[in-house]
Amino acid sequence: MSHSSAPAAGADTTIASINDEISALQVRIKELKMSKQDASAEIDSMKALKDHLKVLTKESQAASGAAAGNTNFVLKTPKGTLDHKPEAALLRKKIFSTLEGIFLKHDASTIDTPVFELKEILAGKYGEDSKLIYDLSDQGGELCSLRYDLTVPFARYVAMNGLTSMRRYHIGKVYRRDQPVMTKGRMREFYQCDFDIAGSCDPMVYDSEVLRVLCESLTALDIGEYTVKINHRKILDGIFQLAGVPADKTRTISSAVDKLDKLPWADVKKEMTIEKGLDEAVADRIGQYVGLKGPGYELLEKLKSDEALMGVPLAKAGIDDMEILFRYLKVYNVLDKMSFDMSLARGLDYYTGIIYEAIHESSAPPSRAPDPSVPAPSTVSSSSGSGSGKPGKSSSRKDKADATATLNEDGVDESTIGVGSIAAGGRYDNLVNMFSEAAGNKKELVPCVGVSVGVERVYSIMEMRRKANQEKVRGKETEVFVLGLGGVEIEKRMEFATMLWDNGIKTSFSPKTNPKTPAQWKQADDDQIPYVAILAPKELAQGLVRIKAQVGKDQAGDDKGEEVAIDQVVGYLKEKLGRA
Amino acid sequence: MSHSSAPAAGADTTIASINDEISALQVRIKELKMSKQDASAEIDSMKALKDHLKVLTKESQAASGAAAGNTNFVLKTPKGTLDHKPEAALLRKKIFSTLEGIFLKHDASTIDTPVFELKEILAGKYGEDSKLIYDLSDQGGELCSLRYDLTVPFARYVAMNGLTSMRRYHIGKVYRRDQPVMTKGRMREFYQCDFDIAGSCDPMVYDSEVLRVLCESLTALDIGEYTVKINHRKILDGIFQLAGVPADKTRTISSAVDKLDKLPWADVKKEMTIEKGLDEAVADRIGQYVGLKGPGYELLEKLKSDEALMGVPLAKAGIDDMEILFRYLKVYNVLDKMSFDMSLARGLDYYTGIIYEAIHESSAPPSRAPDPSVPAPSTVSSSSGSGSGKPGKSSSRKDKADATATLNEDGVDESTIGVGSIAAGGRYDNLVNMFSEAAGNKKELVPCVGVSVGVERVYSIMEMRRKANQEKVRGKETEVFVLGLGGVEIEKRMEFATMLWDNGIKTSFSPKTNPKTPAQWKQADDDQIPYVAILAPKELAQGLVRIKAQVGKDQAGDDKGEEVAIDQVVGYLKEKLGRA
Repeated sequence: MSHSSAPAAGADTTIASINDEISALQVRIKELKMSKQDASAEIDSMKALKDHLKVLTKESQAASGAAAGNTNFVLKTPKGTLDHKPEAALLRKKIFSTLEGIFLKHDASTIDTPVFELKEILAGKYGEDSKLIYDLSDQGGELCSLRYDLTVPFARYVAMNGLTSMRRYHIGKVYRRDQPVMTKGRMREFYQCDFDIAGSCDPMVYDSEVLRVLCESLTALDIGEYTVKINHRKILDGIFQLAGVPADKTRTISSAVDKLDKLPWADVKKEMTIEKGLDEAVADRIGQYVGLKGPGYELLEKLKSDEALMGVPLAKAGIDDMEILFRYLKVYNVLDKMSFDMSLARGLDYYTGIIYEAIHESSAPPSRAPDPSVPAPSTVSSSSGSGSGKPGKSSSRKDKADATATLNEDGVDESTIGVGSIAAGGRYDNLVNMFSEAAGNKKELVPCVGVSVGVERVYSIMEMRRKANQEKVRGKETEVFVLGLGGVEIEKRMEFATMLWDNGIKTSFSPKTNPKTPAQWKQADDDQIPYVAILAPKELAQGLVRIKAQVGKDQAGDDKGEEVAIDQVVGYLKEKLGRA
Repeated sequence: MSHSSAPAAGADTTIASINDEISALQVRIKELKMSKQDASAEIDSMKALKDHLKVLTKESQAASGAAAGNTNFVLKTPKGTLDHKPEAALLRKKIFSTLEGIFLKHDASTIDTPVFELKEILAGKYGEDSKLIYDLSDQGGELCSLRYDLTVPFARYVAMNGLTSMRRYHIGKVYRRDQPVMTKGRMREFYQCDFDIAGSCDPMVYDSEVLRVLCESLTALDIGEYTVKINHRKILDGIFQLAGVPADKTRTISSAVDKLDKLPWADVKKEMTIEKGLDEAVADRIGQYVGLKGPGYELLEKLKSDEALMGVPLAKAGIDDMEILFRYLKVYNVLDKMSFDMSLARGLDYYTGIIYEAIHESSAPPSRAPDPSVPAPSTVSSSSGSGSGKPGKSSSRKDKADATATLNEDGVDESTIGVGSIAAGGRYDNLVNMFSEAAGNKKELVPCVGVSVGVERVYSIMEMRRKANQEKVRGKETEVFVLGLGGVEIEKRMEFATMLWDNGIKTSFSPKTNPKTPAQWKQADDDQIPYVAILAPKELAQGLVRIKAQVGKDQAGDDKGEEVAIDQVVGYLKEKLGRA
């Protein structure tokens, strides 16, 4: 989107040859990825060349006489962020409004928190992901970081205000220094829409309502089929106990299991045994469970009949919870959306009970063939749902005919990436107290459960559908254009517009004092304004104006509109616009 | 809001004596400020003592056995930021929604931009205020800063997309490392609501519409009387030429004039002559003009009759502009809100034409007596308007009986500060091009004019009025509470709620499987829920429920509600709730 001035003669050759090198590297990187080889050295070389190119371009622009004192730079938003143009902003507003309506139906109020928190508030809450936190510079005051999610701020808010219960929703931007995949809604600055309930309840009552809210939301957003993968931390931890995982390895083995949606079992087992030092027999015992998935009750029965597993109190507690949960989910008519899935582990450390992740048919990378090395999933029935979970950056196994597919600035072909999960959450009973205790307050436990809807993922799905349907969206809501003929003074158009504005009618007119007629019609058409009010000297003298409904670009057609008395105009237009 | 554990015995005396010192300093600082003496040394001492106290407290807590590994810290939001609790969040939403409606009436679309920009985008745009910009830490990628306003991002957007015209509004948070005055809506993170028009127009057409939008907005927000101070950069610059200000001192002298709403003329003159090296005679000539203010046409006539001033082309251009402007403002019915004020200069360097600032009766510090040293304002008529402009941190001249008034953490008594201006803006014709040229694009000029509404100031005014009227605001919108009597299972309440949710009715119920009846009524009352649907075994068996309208806390009253057949409940409730 920026234009470089022509580089100075001497730099020409160098810049051109660097560009050639970069193109060659891009092709090479693509080949490597498609054959599943490591391309990181080539990617690093390409980045270094691109940085060098930027410097050369700047120097060359300076040499070719850019204005003294101006530092040429690139007009862009920071990596991983973007502007929302009017149509995009409007679509997001629609998404927020839909979700807000559902959250309000479920007895929630909203809060807002600052976009940055004290550094120590966020520290230690995100496990391995902590390296993705944006810090503010030390400018002599408190050290702060940009919020990574809306959950930790919520827990801080509850602890800070000494609350024992709260039902809240929060729609706001969060910040992660991740590798962006812009076309699939994976950005560094992005909106989340969270719904959480803090406070005690009888088992699974709030948990089931949050899942009901999740399903209502995804259905209302009309994005097509989706599945909610669901599991329970206690069952997973119980499986680990049964398999013989040492207590200090629980979290790290859990993190390995979580990769099963991206990696084949062979790779995950390798990570557990070789990287993380787990006994192979233990890994195998884990492997017998984590491939299990299916509709709620069917897998539940299978687990209940497993005496060894039911003999582990932690696992039994989780399984009992799931039984109650499914009963409530059936009343809520959402049980059929659930896939009880033993491979779901979720990265974040603070989950203590149920965990869930919603996936969509576009979540997986396009055209991904099933992996023969994954232990045949012991689905207890012909399964449901769409997609196979959260994909990572692994390349598509399908050969691509088009070898010149565009790579993003990290050397990744975004068309091979899936959207990933579109919502996720779980129960986290200790987070509020982590704050209360750290602040020196002795407080009772405030258990929490919630869900976060990944708005940007949803947005990119809706965008793809919209493009497919070729829908056109207005960026404005303007209803009436005031057009002046025959030298009618601008003050007359302003006066007329004032009358409409005073009555809540969205109105515009040309900013020229003496505009040409075709230019005025063009403004009305370009902005797709449905009504035009034509002011002409003779009619004005009689207290009349002509109002014409716009139908496409045919303003030269037979329809000359209706003559309306000026003092009737507001009523006339309100009726046409469908307002009392 | 955080509790410190009792300090260890040895630290007791030290902590207590430091607290005594701090209290004594607070009293001293207050005395100094009230007698208009410099208290900065005392303020620094107090801050140092407070910091030392924090350290001692932490050490003492650690010593008294706080959990190993826990670093005790304070549960708070960063300085100058705050959470919006539900009632506050709701009130802000109402403000945004009101403003958005007006912006949409005026043919604008909305955009959103990232909360941080590349550092070079913001650099050099804010003059002396640049030191107030928050930077992101250098974490190995691009250097970024948090946006300081919404105007520079807009200009960047227009330049980046190669637009020649756009009418946009933008409601979003901005960031300034200023000294906060929280109770008066002066914060480090705060919302702005901006309306700007980029693009060419005939003289003053867009300028007048923006002022019309400003007045519509402030009137719709119903905050009481307000005045819009208005001036023109060309007139000011013309006055400086006439007075003999050297060209290189124009901006810095302008910055001095801008302080006339906070400082007496004597101080401003001193700054011009002593600090900034202006000739005293030149300063005096400036002084003859900058005290002038009054309703539009009257001051305009006075200026037009000033031959010397009209002989300066720059000044004449500005005065001619004002004449056209007032003509349009009269058509728009907002001329009476304007105060044409020669002392308005505005800090930001990028203004090139008209500039304006809206003030409210609460803008000035409370009970500020007129300053005898200000040259008697040559108001050309008994003036209008409220307040005397934007106050700074200068102390109130009124003696305060209460010597123990609370000081904020910077040692400032917030009750002596005014809210300041509540909206501001102007014409800025060169900003878009500054970006285009810096990026090496040769582009035609894209002139802009706009206004920014200071939502937090407006919010704090509305809050003060609300407290005065003792209005109570709900944080939720829940409409129906489902109450179970006589051991009705939770699934029955869930099923009933599901029926209501499926029909868009906002519904809640107790999270207990077997809740006590008084606790259920309490939940309905605490949340001020207008309708209660009572499920009881006998009635349920007959397919009936009882629906009761809540009137205050009198659920034990005679009104037992109406019996309604379950399949009629939705229609019954929708009618009661005023929905088709």
